[in-house]
Amino acid sequence: MSLTQLAPDYIRAIAPYQGGKPISELAREMGLEESSIVKLASNENPVGLSPKARAAMLQAMDELTRYPDGNGFELKAKIAQKFGVPAAGIVLGNGSNDILELAARTFLTADDSVVYAQYSFAVYPLVTQAVGAQGIEVKAVEYGHDLNAMLEAIQPNTKLVFIANPNNPTGTMCRPGDIVEFLENCPTNVLVLIDEAYTEYLPAEKQCDTIGLMKRFPNLIVSRTLSKAYGLAGLRVGFGLCAPEVADLMNRVRQPFNVNSLAQAAACAALDDSEFLTETVRINNEGMKQITDAFIRLGVSFIPSFGNFVTFHVGDGPALNRFMLERGVIIRPLASYGMRDSLRVSIGLPAENARFIEVLEQALA
Amino acid sequence: MSLTQLAPDYIRAIAPYQGGKPISELAREMGLEESSIVKLASNENPVGLSPKARAAMLQAMDELTRYPDGNGFELKAKIAQKFGVPAAGIVLGNGSNDILELAARTFLTADDSVVYAQYSFAVYPLVTQAVGAQGIEVKAVEYGHDLNAMLEAIQPNTKLVFIANPNNPTGTMCRPGDIVEFLENCPTNVLVLIDEAYTEYLPAEKQCDTIGLMKRFPNLIVSRTLSKAYGLAGLRVGFGLCAPEVADLMNRVRQPFNVNSLAQAAACAALDDSEFLTETVRINNEGMKQITDAFIRLGVSFIPSFGNFVTFHVGDGPALNRFMLERGVIIRPLASYGMRDSLRVSIGLPAENARFIEVLEQALA
Repeated sequence: MSLTQLAPDYIRAIAPYQGGKPISELAREMGLEESSIVKLASNENPVGLSPKARAAMLQAMDELTRYPDGNGFELKAKIAQKFGVPAAGIVLGNGSNDILELAARTFLTADDSVVYAQYSFAVYPLVTQAVGAQGIEVKAVEYGHDLNAMLEAIQPNTKLVFIANPNNPTGTMCRPGDIVEFLENCPTNVLVLIDEAYTEYLPAEKQCDTIGLMKRFPNLIVSRTLSKAYGLAGLRVGFGLCAPEVADLMNRVRQPFNVNSLAQAAACAALDDSEFLTETVRINNEGMKQITDAFIRLGVSFIPSFGNFVTFHVGDGPALNRFMLERGVIIRPLASYGMRDSLRVSIGLPAENARFIEVLEQALA
Repeated sequence: MSLTQLAPDYIRAIAPYQGGKPISELAREMGLEESSIVKLASNENPVGLSPKARAAMLQAMDELTRYPDGNGFELKAKIAQKFGVPAAGIVLGNGSNDILELAARTFLTADDSVVYAQYSFAVYPLVTQAVGAQGIEVKAVEYGHDLNAMLEAIQPNTKLVFIANPNNPTGTMCRPGDIVEFLENCPTNVLVLIDEAYTEYLPAEKQCDTIGLMKRFPNLIVSRTLSKAYGLAGLRVGFGLCAPEVADLMNRVRQPFNVNSLAQAAACAALDDSEFLTETVRINNEGMKQITDAFIRLGVSFIPSFGNFVTFHVGDGPALNRFMLERGVIIRPLASYGMRDSLRVSIGLPAENARFIEVLEQALA
């Protein structure tokens, strides 16, 4: 008997998550200089590291032989203060990926189902499958969440709904009023996890006050990340906000030292660095205009995006992706999302965006 | 209905892992200066940070806005070279805790059982319970693993056996010949995970060549950590070595970016820093002698240990623990291990050990 047969069928059927290709990997594969490569594949922050976060890390470095604070006292206090939530309602994650997984592992069994949208984040079906639960994918409308159809898709065995707002990889958003209406109509014994990894890029008037809604809807879990607008993707830190009774259970399943010490220190500092956040959003808005202007000029159709990336339609996605890779530009193919005709590009610095546009023009020529 | 009732019974029954109390927490609770506190509670490396690891982290810091390399190319190459294993047989973990959890989540369902020893690492029952599987705890002999009894405890639905060598929290070891005999008699469709978190502290002649045994026993998984002798507990990095087909499945369940960038960079450097490792073992041997000599002098009985800690018997463990905490000395109570009469102290620097001995003497007086 092969040892792999020891694993349940649903585990053996998992197709691993395909992240953005690392610069070092492309350099090895194509024999390119790393410095010549432009990576716009993982919705990373092009601004660099917050100086405050860097300083906090340097200070925390001497303590690295110690285990991290497993309860994340300082970081939870910072989050509690900044977002006006009780520390008991916070779950810290090794990136918000950890929060998504913890929600699944804490509440789901193989008898349950989970509702999420077509063209939404790949990790929702992955964490669902990893516990053997049934994923119910609800057809998107114009590449975005069809919240009414998602409501209707909820089954008696549905325990969890994932909503990405803004959505990755399509960049669509849900209107605040629609989210409230969804919550009003959703059974109270179904957990609703709203993944707000990109919320900092939304203009204030388009943001849903999900944290304010948590009192009214205790079945609401909000996840946030420091990997995007806060620029700490490499350190791995995210958090979930929810009812304390929900947080308590998730914290029991959580690995005791899931968030490393430097991540905790850097996150505390980054959450305080409003200057860095403002600059990040400014650079993103400019870059989004630079890239979408080019799409319009070149007649490339795209999905208007509220994130730090934009998905565009090109016919043969894998072919254009290869063309880009050969020229040292890494963007994200979306075939695994069922969007073979589309690619996603992250918004970079002006010169990075220009290089992407240049190679796109070459490809179209 | 309470939302907690959405979670399965076995999740609601989880008692969270109790780590060593962080220095900052005791300082807050007791109104002590952090610098006056001695923490010998988490088997951390007292030597400090490897200078090579520090330099590697500083160099990697500029790339923190990027996601880590999800496949850990460089770190796997280093591990493969150092231990003579194929990169395809390596699973990187957010600490070795992640490896233990991944083994459970990849292979177990609620219909399976897991065998581990009494007085062994608390995470084995935790990860077993978190997937709803049945834990079979096998009575220890002289605080160590009874490998014959563990063999006999294997049931038709047993998929996984955890063996800690050396064992935490008791410090006992298994003889290499006994491990080989165990593997020879263990059914080939039962995975055997040997947790070698403390293996670097074993003298060469007592080490079992588990990595060499992997070819003969493809059901063997070896887990290692950088948190102990390599001094990187705060960064979270460990790894599992196993048959490539087993690694492939565990890597599908693994969070794509579970090991952060600095941890990958620092681990590469630390694995090369044999000077630091030698110094660590030397300091540990001296500290072990300092503390056990004091135990003998004071008439305190203890379990001879092969790790970087030692467990001793005191009658009322919680009372002595409180006495120590009030005087700024953090050690580890073992009541949650069913050893209420015992406490575990990690080996520190000479002055830290001396402070522990001093307070112990006060308590006994």
